[in-house]
Amino acid sequence: MTTQDAHARAENATDTAAAGKALGSHKGYLQGPRPDIRVPVRRVHLTNGKDVTLYDTSGPYTDPAIDTDVRRGLAPLRENWIVQRGDTEEYAGRELRPEDDGIKHTSPRGGLRNLDAVFPGRPRQPRRGRNGASVTQLAYAKRGEITPEMEFVALRENLSAEFVRDEIAAGRAVLPANVNHPETEPMIIGKNFLVKVNANIGNSAVTSSIEEEVEKMTWATRWGADTVMDLSTGRNIHTTREWVLRNSPVPIGTVPLYQALEKVDGKAEELSWEVYKDTVIEQCEQGVDYMTVHAGVLLRYVPLTARRKTGIVSRGGSIMAAWCLAHHKESFLYEHFSELCEILRTYDVTFSLGDGLRPGSIADANDAAQMAELDTLGELNRIAKAHDVQTMIEGPGHVPMHKIKENVDRQQEVCEEAPFYTLGPLTTDIAPAYDHITSGIGAAMIGWWGTAMLCYVTPKEHLGLPDKDDVKTGVITYKIAAHAADLAKGHPGAQQWDDALSDARFEFRWEDQFNLALDPETARAFHDETLPAEPAKTAHFCSMCGPKFCSMKISQEIREQHGATMEEVEAGMAEKSREFAAAGNRVYLPLAD
Amino acid sequence: MTTQDAHARAENATDTAAAGKALGSHKGYLQGPRPDIRVPVRRVHLTNGKDVTLYDTSGPYTDPAIDTDVRRGLAPLRENWIVQRGDTEEYAGRELRPEDDGIKHTSPRGGLRNLDAVFPGRPRQPRRGRNGASVTQLAYAKRGEITPEMEFVALRENLSAEFVRDEIAAGRAVLPANVNHPETEPMIIGKNFLVKVNANIGNSAVTSSIEEEVEKMTWATRWGADTVMDLSTGRNIHTTREWVLRNSPVPIGTVPLYQALEKVDGKAEELSWEVYKDTVIEQCEQGVDYMTVHAGVLLRYVPLTARRKTGIVSRGGSIMAAWCLAHHKESFLYEHFSELCEILRTYDVTFSLGDGLRPGSIADANDAAQMAELDTLGELNRIAKAHDVQTMIEGPGHVPMHKIKENVDRQQEVCEEAPFYTLGPLTTDIAPAYDHITSGIGAAMIGWWGTAMLCYVTPKEHLGLPDKDDVKTGVITYKIAAHAADLAKGHPGAQQWDDALSDARFEFRWEDQFNLALDPETARAFHDETLPAEPAKTAHFCSMCGPKFCSMKISQEIREQHGATMEEVEAGMAEKSREFAAAGNRVYLPLAD
Repeated sequence: MTTQDAHARAENATDTAAAGKALGSHKGYLQGPRPDIRVPVRRVHLTNGKDVTLYDTSGPYTDPAIDTDVRRGLAPLRENWIVQRGDTEEYAGRELRPEDDGIKHTSPRGGLRNLDAVFPGRPRQPRRGRNGASVTQLAYAKRGEITPEMEFVALRENLSAEFVRDEIAAGRAVLPANVNHPETEPMIIGKNFLVKVNANIGNSAVTSSIEEEVEKMTWATRWGADTVMDLSTGRNIHTTREWVLRNSPVPIGTVPLYQALEKVDGKAEELSWEVYKDTVIEQCEQGVDYMTVHAGVLLRYVPLTARRKTGIVSRGGSIMAAWCLAHHKESFLYEHFSELCEILRTYDVTFSLGDGLRPGSIADANDAAQMAELDTLGELNRIAKAHDVQTMIEGPGHVPMHKIKENVDRQQEVCEEAPFYTLGPLTTDIAPAYDHITSGIGAAMIGWWGTAMLCYVTPKEHLGLPDKDDVKTGVITYKIAAHAADLAKGHPGAQQWDDALSDARFEFRWEDQFNLALDPETARAFHDETLPAEPAKTAHFCSMCGPKFCSMKISQEIREQHGATMEEVEAGMAEKSREFAAAGNRVYLPLAD
Repeated sequence: MTTQDAHARAENATDTAAAGKALGSHKGYLQGPRPDIRVPVRRVHLTNGKDVTLYDTSGPYTDPAIDTDVRRGLAPLRENWIVQRGDTEEYAGRELRPEDDGIKHTSPRGGLRNLDAVFPGRPRQPRRGRNGASVTQLAYAKRGEITPEMEFVALRENLSAEFVRDEIAAGRAVLPANVNHPETEPMIIGKNFLVKVNANIGNSAVTSSIEEEVEKMTWATRWGADTVMDLSTGRNIHTTREWVLRNSPVPIGTVPLYQALEKVDGKAEELSWEVYKDTVIEQCEQGVDYMTVHAGVLLRYVPLTARRKTGIVSRGGSIMAAWCLAHHKESFLYEHFSELCEILRTYDVTFSLGDGLRPGSIADANDAAQMAELDTLGELNRIAKAHDVQTMIEGPGHVPMHKIKENVDRQQEVCEEAPFYTLGPLTTDIAPAYDHITSGIGAAMIGWWGTAMLCYVTPKEHLGLPDKDDVKTGVITYKIAAHAADLAKGHPGAQQWDDALSDARFEFRWEDQFNLALDPETARAFHDETLPAEPAKTAHFCSMCGPKFCSMKISQEIREQHGATMEEVEAGMAEKSREFAAAGNRVYLPLAD
């Protein structure tokens, strides 16, 4: 979003340099209808005196006026709003157990492997809806209420709060905001809003540490991630999540099944509703904003994957399939779905209904297994909505371009326009190490056609765990896809960003071009590789074509030298045009009339 | 193209390791209907004993049986074919002049700046059609002849020679092959063939050398570039091109206007038909296979760009616009177009009719200036075709996704399905340093919808001149776009490559997965970053999920352990299905009947 009017509304904006400066912008705030609604923005000061205001996901970290400390966590921005609603209560909560962090009961250490890792921030009791009340944004929206979160989002998207409320009430948008994650800056996911991007982080049994994951989260949001999923599967899974949540300005998603599986030592057949439910409550109390639940993987669908090229490629999907076959019983997630809804609505945790049977190769795209599961997700979506639980639907995967649109169209129909949240899709299988690109292509297209949030894919997909560079590359690629989709959808205001950058380009305002870029640092570095001197930043050409062949320079000279001539020619054409119209707009005049 | 049958046809294939090995493949040849038609392929030997055959653009450099030397140039593969046709003659040719290399007449050195740079290979007289004869593949095709070049291409694309001939005859495809570039391995550009990729190279006044350009050319073809355009604009422009041509296994394109401008010291208004014609003949004699000609930039169109955000962004377009306005006369390229056709057809140089008024920003996409020029290109295409000159049409540029299809559809209509050759298009302006991605998205889509060749964009676009790494990134990104388009078009055989890689992935054949990747080196390196040990190459998991969460591992276990169960469930469903059908396929049975 690039809005001069939004800017104008923010006269009292805090506007400082420092941290945000590295991104070529300054932190600013749009002031909402009440003092505690202040929406962060990135403000790019141009050398021509103008300002461009951009959507900002980077949180308080880029505000030099705020002293952040990962050991303390972020300030609970939404706490008063939640408390003032008066429909929640604090309670003792579930006791933390060693196995929450993947420590076996029989461990001789009998506790957390690394006590230093425990989050040191303020002690806090979990909160939930009083007497099982629905405390979801969906419940409020259905009742016609506009919450501060909705006001915040309206300002952020430059739309009316009523529109935000109505989209949520209709189930066309979700505002993921667990009452136990008051640190989050409200954002909305829905096809009538800006297309969002999710970044996955998470350690695995093989590699990476808590510190790395927290750093990846802040790094991802710095480059534009709208939500972050913590997909950790190894040790310290609870503690890693605690650190991530307390420091995250964006909604955090998880797949509770991963932790549940750790609790039963990785044996899928030993999973049970009880272990799963315990894990969900644990994560609800921590503040997870949305959860992927693979409740659509039904026993009868599993055989549909038997002849697939790549079987079941969703971790959650394969675990649930293994459970169903081992017990020869219907999925406990499906069987207990209503009960799950009753839990989630007391924390306002949003469902992300997982596509456990998504295709993992071009050959398997849009097959019977995938479509059967989608129908079930549609059924579950209706149940969740009836229970006031906000819901989005996950989508594939690996899909060739000509089969992408069918995915959105069917999802929108079957799931009553619930937000679609897709992984890519990858448009070919042949380029491991470049799957941010194979999938960025599909992501842009599916975003244009109505997907609300795009789950990024990094260059390491299929090969290894992403490091910081991969996270950045993934986020930037997906911000491109999301913005290209916003343009194609004709999202109001989206093109102002492109226009501002193109103006800077045509007028050889190099510094503005860099600062307006999605990645100012790399744009500047690339330019400096061949023309490092400071005067080159104002030069009316670049190293690509050199001064003689710079089309923009020639184009400008044409305007300067031939402006009058061009007007003459244009006027001449207009004259001809009038004559033509006067003669009846006919190319061939009738011979006799 | 991945064809087992093509492979089967090549029993006598030379099949060796070494140079090609680095790409994870071995050089092979498909034997054509005559001994001197041998089509190079990349053959990937899988660990399961199977072979996958891939299209190969890398030329003799990856054949360890051939001793290549850039100072000698490549063997003239097509020379006998050209000579045997008997319709060309050798002649003295135009004398090389200092100004051909950008050396001023008044230069005290009076000659080439760096004599060492003169190409030392075999001396050679230029060749042309006897008595002005059309010696183009189009002329032969129109007469119903099938040339060895067409046979070569047919084998390369796994289609019949008759089909190739008919597509060329209809003007739906071009086979760029100057009689003075006998080193080229024939390839075809048309919407009913594999989507092709062009890589631009070229020094500028500011940077880079001859050696670098030759290296970029071989590097680009190694990664899959189907043609290369030499866009040099600085000194040694003639000599650089000579080195590139004599060493290039792919067709070389140029923009003669750039060199013509050098000859008049960069003053656009001093250009003339005579200088331009002299330059065209110079390049025809050297062996340039296709030339971008901006003959559609008419005087009356220039004012249409006056209110554009980024004016005229094509170098050639801006030069011609400046000339038209300076003289207030119609473009000399347009006025002399038929004469130009008469020159080009005697060498079989293919037109690439340039879109000098292409949009340079999202704001300018599909505007009046662009569409007016396209109509003129349609007119020129008909003239060129009537003169037996092969022709393709260049396209944009910067276009948001929802406006891309209109570009192909209109071009195909206006230009009678002549091959469309587009730059990107870039789908947003906001990501300098990532324009390979912003444009790769558009390229994949426009390829799907019918574009025949995609001109790559590198990460340095708008910022600087690409180095070797950028060339590789650009080519790989565009090979992804082209292959995604082949899949979406349902090109026969295209999916076999994806299937082979997905099979390898599902069966944990890591080495095969690497070797089948578009970029085996990077795929292997990424995997090794987290799991460097050799046993990890056969491990049934990767560092992404670790062993417990590997969905493919679980999926395989499901098949092993529950294969019978899955069949039971499947059989049970089939039974239910039969019952359902027997009952009349009605969801609700009628109450009484």
